[in-house]
Amino acid sequence: MSHRAQPAPAAHGVAGAAGNAPFRVGLLGHGTVGSGFSALLAQRADEIERFNGRRPVISGILTRSQGDFDEILQGADLLVELIGGIEPARSYLLAAMRAGKDVVSANKQLLSQHGEELFETAREHGVRLRFEAAVAGAVPIVRVLEESLSATPIERVHGIVNGTTNFILSEMYNGSSYAQALADAQAKGYAEADPSDDVSGRDAAAKMAILARLAFGSPVHLDDVHYEGIEHLHGDDLQYARELGLGLKLIGTAERRQGGLSVRVYPALLYSGHPLASVQGPFNAVTIESETIIEITMSGPGAGGPQTASAVLGDVVSVMTGGARPPAPPLELPIIKDVDSAFYVHMEVADRPGVLAALMHALGEHGVSIRSVVQRGMDESARLVMVTHAVPESSLRAAIDQVAQLDFLRGAPRTIRVIEEEFI
Amino acid sequence: MSHRAQPAPAAHGVAGAAGNAPFRVGLLGHGTVGSGFSALLAQRADEIERFNGRRPVISGILTRSQGDFDEILQGADLLVELIGGIEPARSYLLAAMRAGKDVVSANKQLLSQHGEELFETAREHGVRLRFEAAVAGAVPIVRVLEESLSATPIERVHGIVNGTTNFILSEMYNGSSYAQALADAQAKGYAEADPSDDVSGRDAAAKMAILARLAFGSPVHLDDVHYEGIEHLHGDDLQYARELGLGLKLIGTAERRQGGLSVRVYPALLYSGHPLASVQGPFNAVTIESETIIEITMSGPGAGGPQTASAVLGDVVSVMTGGARPPAPPLELPIIKDVDSAFYVHMEVADRPGVLAALMHALGEHGVSIRSVVQRGMDESARLVMVTHAVPESSLRAAIDQVAQLDFLRGAPRTIRVIEEEFI
Repeated sequence: MSHRAQPAPAAHGVAGAAGNAPFRVGLLGHGTVGSGFSALLAQRADEIERFNGRRPVISGILTRSQGDFDEILQGADLLVELIGGIEPARSYLLAAMRAGKDVVSANKQLLSQHGEELFETAREHGVRLRFEAAVAGAVPIVRVLEESLSATPIERVHGIVNGTTNFILSEMYNGSSYAQALADAQAKGYAEADPSDDVSGRDAAAKMAILARLAFGSPVHLDDVHYEGIEHLHGDDLQYARELGLGLKLIGTAERRQGGLSVRVYPALLYSGHPLASVQGPFNAVTIESETIIEITMSGPGAGGPQTASAVLGDVVSVMTGGARPPAPPLELPIIKDVDSAFYVHMEVADRPGVLAALMHALGEHGVSIRSVVQRGMDESARLVMVTHAVPESSLRAAIDQVAQLDFLRGAPRTIRVIEEEFI
Repeated sequence: MSHRAQPAPAAHGVAGAAGNAPFRVGLLGHGTVGSGFSALLAQRADEIERFNGRRPVISGILTRSQGDFDEILQGADLLVELIGGIEPARSYLLAAMRAGKDVVSANKQLLSQHGEELFETAREHGVRLRFEAAVAGAVPIVRVLEESLSATPIERVHGIVNGTTNFILSEMYNGSSYAQALADAQAKGYAEADPSDDVSGRDAAAKMAILARLAFGSPVHLDDVHYEGIEHLHGDDLQYARELGLGLKLIGTAERRQGGLSVRVYPALLYSGHPLASVQGPFNAVTIESETIIEITMSGPGAGGPQTASAVLGDVVSVMTGGARPPAPPLELPIIKDVDSAFYVHMEVADRPGVLAALMHALGEHGVSIRSVVQRGMDESARLVMVTHAVPESSLRAAIDQVAQLDFLRGAPRTIRVIEEEFI
């Protein structure tokens, strides 16, 4: 069933027609974002009516203590879900779509774990499912991937999609310790009391799963995303990065590789000319690459209350104007787990003859070749910092496991990926 | 008459319906961009059909030597205009819209000089007029301004919208002369044999007129845009900028000021943390500012053949999916010409006592106060570089006219605007 077969299709998107009925928005959840959204909607209603011919109004609000879901659903043209978490958000969205209503959600957990169920339901019932606010705050990356670029075969989407960790890394780069930077982020409201979703990379992984689905049209679940966070980075890794003129960022990447998709999140060293290297503080930035367009980078503040409310309202307006469409059926691309990267490897070793040769031999056995190496003495041990050429991650891991057994090692080796390409 | 009242409205935007008639695209103009567009359309037709239920096909091509306009118009669902210039492009677009056809154009001259006539005709006949390719190459700034941000009151749009001049300034910043940088740009195909439209700032002014119209909904003609180019910049202005840690870019700005709009293009000094300062080479970047979203920056390669073809095809797809709408009626905001800026002022003066005091006095009489001043001796004259606080442009001009009369001046003073704000 296509959306146009719904009972009142003419109600959507007629520009300039006077005296149209208001466009009724049912709101699920009324916390910080929900109340910011309803205030913004009231503030912008005149302008939206001028452009689109219908005036948006909040027709009902569901909170834990108030409102009846079925009644709100009946009285709305569209539902906005700002509850967060999996349940009851999932059941509400499915019920709304099955009743033929368009929906807007800002819920990245839900979309990254139950996306296919939601997309399939939207497709089956011919309704629109919009979620700009789930990914990169005010940066309209979802819209650009969905609409502008349908004419362009995308090769890679990568970027900084977690403002909390970008703030922490920016502070560490300037000399703060991890603990101090985290405390600062909490004081400024960029990090929650329990920051584990952010600092573990899980939040970024959920967003990359959603972006990968959009960019490549193939199902990607949060579980398909390999992710590492920033908790294990040392201050001296950042100091080395500075000395080498490199940036250090938590980078999410989704790309075509070997006939499939690879989606991953990890801290990475970037050359200083890289478009993502200069993104500072609680900002997000995403680069889209394709042969046709070369690359587009979009950046802006990460999700805060006002940015999220603005993105949600943008989705509502795009449904009102008929700009969104039900999702297309998915392709099925295999998920590729073992991809090539260059690595930075940091080791402390006993300072005695033959150590470097033995290390090189162990690495070479696994096909790991070294692009540069810096050795610094410190009392009886030495610190070795190496940058490898690109190598399959599995080979690097095997090499590091073997190296870790060598008796002259003074601690576990540490590794960070290096993004090799230069800015055009 | 609304678009939905057209004979075959159901033909637009039905996802997944099998066996739909092809979507017929009539193409006006078949030069580099036109042939790139038809090749890209053929290459992407399968994918577009999968997403949108209809297959786009080129149903006719008009060149100077081939094709009949009326026949092509009759046989098309949409016309793409890639002829460029004012006539006959304008007459063809008006005729197509009057016949109820949607149109896509990449023609910035036409849109910046006859935009209101085109918008009014589109509105009257309920058709879509799309022009993503007219502004910033592959960067989907038109779409983002029109669609995502209808929920957000925009305060300012500013950016680098001419890749040719950005390439030249990047080269000059690294030590090239203007002539050498221009020759390089021509050799690489970034600048035309006659580069005057680019280096005079006129090309950027046309794009800013279009962006201002979109961002603020008020008519802006190319003649409303005050523009200056880069021909008069000296190599040593760029060397000073380097020494002061500043970037020097050709910046277009459109913003709300004193109850009206100011739209202008000129070379400007930027603090190094400014999001536009790091944009190098033939790239474009545009920042959108609003209270709600703070700021979004979008960057990518300037218009080249493949980027333009890709943007045009994106517009075709957005009409196919029903995502575009006829333009809303315009607001009417006054154009403000005299705005405040900080200025860099460069003067060569005789090196004798009292000169600085006399200068300060002359500037002070016009309300120009100085933030910093650097004086360097060179034989019998001295070079003074000042940065002023923000001051109305008319006051600065009056002050400079008076200073230019002083007998110790050794040449005309040179001024460049300074963008003051810091990156958040």
